Amino acid sequence: MRAVDIISNKKNGKVHSREELEFWINGIVSNKIPDYQITAWLMAVCLNGMNFDETAILTELIAKTGTMLDLSSIDDFILDKHSTGGVGDKITLILIPLMAACGGKIAKLSGRGLGHTGGTIDKLESIKGFNTGLETKEFIEQVKKIGCAIASQTNDLAYADKKFYELRDVTATVDCLPLIASSVVSKKIASGANIIVLDVKCGDGAIVKTKDQAERLSKLMVEVAKRLNRSITAVISSMDEPLGYNVGNALEVIESIEVLKGQGAKDLVDLTFELGSILLTKAKIASSKAQAIEIMEQAIKNGSALNKFRELINIQKGCSECIDDYSLLPKASIIEPLYASKTGYVQKIKTLELANACKILGAGRERKTDSIDYSVGVVLNKKVGDKIEIGEKLLDIHSNSVEKLQEAKNILKEAFVITNEKTLPEPLVYKIID
Amino acid sequence: MRAVDIISNKKNGKVHSREELEFWINGIVSNKIPDYQITAWLMAVCLNGMNFDETAILTELIAKTGTMLDLSSIDDFILDKHSTGGVGDKITLILIPLMAACGGKIAKLSGRGLGHTGGTIDKLESIKGFNTGLETKEFIEQVKKIGCAIASQTNDLAYADKKFYELRDVTATVDCLPLIASSVVSKKIASGANIIVLDVKCGDGAIVKTKDQAERLSKLMVEVAKRLNRSITAVISSMDEPLGYNVGNALEVIESIEVLKGQGAKDLVDLTFELGSILLTKAKIASSKAQAIEIMEQAIKNGSALNKFRELINIQKGCSECIDDYSLLPKASIIEPLYASKTGYVQKIKTLELANACKILGAGRERKTDSIDYSVGVVLNKKVGDKIEIGEKLLDIHSNSVEKLQEAKNILKEAFVITNEKTLPEPLVYKIID
Repeated sequence: MRAVDIISNKKNGKVHSREELEFWINGIVSNKIPDYQITAWLMAVCLNGMNFDETAILTELIAKTGTMLDLSSIDDFILDKHSTGGVGDKITLILIPLMAACGGKIAKLSGRGLGHTGGTIDKLESIKGFNTGLETKEFIEQVKKIGCAIASQTNDLAYADKKFYELRDVTATVDCLPLIASSVVSKKIASGANIIVLDVKCGDGAIVKTKDQAERLSKLMVEVAKRLNRSITAVISSMDEPLGYNVGNALEVIESIEVLKGQGAKDLVDLTFELGSILLTKAKIASSKAQAIEIMEQAIKNGSALNKFRELINIQKGCSECIDDYSLLPKASIIEPLYASKTGYVQKIKTLELANACKILGAGRERKTDSIDYSVGVVLNKKVGDKIEIGEKLLDIHSNSVEKLQEAKNILKEAFVITNEKTLPEPLVYKIID
Repeated sequence: MRAVDIISNKKNGKVHSREELEFWINGIVSNKIPDYQITAWLMAVCLNGMNFDETAILTELIAKTGTMLDLSSIDDFILDKHSTGGVGDKITLILIPLMAACGGKIAKLSGRGLGHTGGTIDKLESIKGFNTGLETKEFIEQVKKIGCAIASQTNDLAYADKKFYELRDVTATVDCLPLIASSVVSKKIASGANIIVLDVKCGDGAIVKTKDQAERLSKLMVEVAKRLNRSITAVISSMDEPLGYNVGNALEVIESIEVLKGQGAKDLVDLTFELGSILLTKAKIASSKAQAIEIMEQAIKNGSALNKFRELINIQKGCSECIDDYSLLPKASIIEPLYASKTGYVQKIKTLELANACKILGAGRERKTDSIDYSVGVVLNKKVGDKIEIGEKLLDIHSNSVEKLQEAKNILKEAFVITNEKTLPEPLVYKIID
């Protein structure tokens, strides 16, 4: 077998055998297959696709190119949650302590963000002292002890996925369902949980733009997981406007704490409960969605979810006093409002533009080595469907630079579409697939 | 503009603009675009295609990435001939002196072979002393003086084509019509001739396997040349069995001399006349195909074509005595016949297998740096349609190694399909497109 034959087969629309995929992934891991052959194959996969079986085999092989976490010593259902990435998506920060407060065991490995805003790890690191660099043993012990842990995904997880991702990013092969599916699911398989909920974002601000694509991706991931003996439930949710009101690292931590205090934005709470109820019923903590929601509402009402977050911050060496005093979190030096230039209803918020403005402010990174400004971002005052008067505040921009503020402002001015007729926002959850 | 956007456009089936292709080729020439982006694009082109306009622009841009030969000082129609490559194809060796003997001016740059047998340059170099490394000035002066020259294609011709070819070879993107067309035509454009005949080989032993593909490729090349103000005529010819009887470098020189002596194999002579008559009529040396053939027949009959070959060898410092004494050419130490194992008719000669046997004997090279054994190869005794008795000779194997001989023999045994019913060979010329 030669690498060029594998490429040729996929170019000619053939289905790869397990032997072919093993040869391929082994060749990549051992650096025997050069990048220029990998990218030709990635493009062939993009254009000619892969069936469920191929994707499952690829996923399994990618997972095995790095450490495979063995969480069996936790001796319970191990929960995990993943989002394909959206603007203002801070649900992990809320869901992890909430699940533990409800009696679940949730072990979450997260990434740093590459793109418009930081990832979960970046957001948590805006809390002074918070240590995301847990060793595997510490990580497992912590889940056993307090029911939850959030650690930075180590570099030795799913090596081939990293390799693929770097190359996909520069060869226009990102938006390819079998490649997205194998990337997401391989990391979940390697992370060791057995009950996994995936939040598949769909819309302007997401990798997946259409409901049809989101549905096909979800079915593919659910099927791949089944073939690999894991339970994945995919929740397709709208990303046509930011989730909640705050976008930016520390700003999202604040909004997450607000949810745990019972004061969260409706869309954020609703989606958290949707995802949480799937995990709680699958883990047999609740027997129905209604019961699961009741349990979660109770955990927020009685303060146990907030306390669990405090416990999580403390055990990971962070300064948990920020929960009661937001001024302990990084704060931007300039906060400038942006006002509406006409009266009407917010018909659309261009999510990608808004995210881009946040990146310009410094909330995200373009290269892996870029540093992040935890304090900057945007706090919305209006969401889709809201009435707005001319001169009324649309949002606040948090910035540490006058120049960047101006640049972001110019983008944000164009990000709101205001019309005379009220538009109802898209339903938050479009479909659940399992 | 970014490289990834160009790749993305082709992935999404868009038509490239001239600006995009300029950006792309400039980026490749200046080494700003890495190989892994080039190959992703090559695969996207393979699967999503290119239209006539895109291919013409690409061809022009590729031609301009290297030296553009200016042959205008020759002050006449300048003829050129190119074959897409077939087994036993020694027509260049015959056609070049023949055209000059008929009063044409033919300036031929050729490559070394990478594959089953040597290229025209390798074949000529089996003649002792033959110098193919002509400077541009020498090359032009020689065409002016004796009407013809054959020189080794310099490395500075169509740089981007070389780059593409190296990458296509290892990424299964060779058999892609717009890429083949732009590769062939860009080199012809850079080589400076204005009347070009292309021998598009079609069949088992060629890059292009089907008549439909050959026709599409031919139309594409003819159209591209028109857009770039050159005249190309494509002759689609069969490559379902070797051309002539001899395969191997010195063996093909001998067979070429035989044709010039008026003793050539019918298929070889027919195709030479087909290609030659196109050149002679386009150059206004003949007013019809019939007249062109008469002129060529005359040039062979009266010895002027053979004399022109002698003149060509002499002026390029080769030992032309080999024309009268084949023992002055490299000769293999072992000549072993292969006999038929049954009686019947030759229904098929598996051309690629035969070529592969020649490569094993040492007639071709796998890597650019491999050396070639000029003396080895195969001399057929039977062609498709011929009657054969059990025990009658199918061919002679010329080898310098007992081991290689055995290996080649095992392949050659399987290369002949003998049946009870007579099969007529495919017509040699399938279609002419201009």
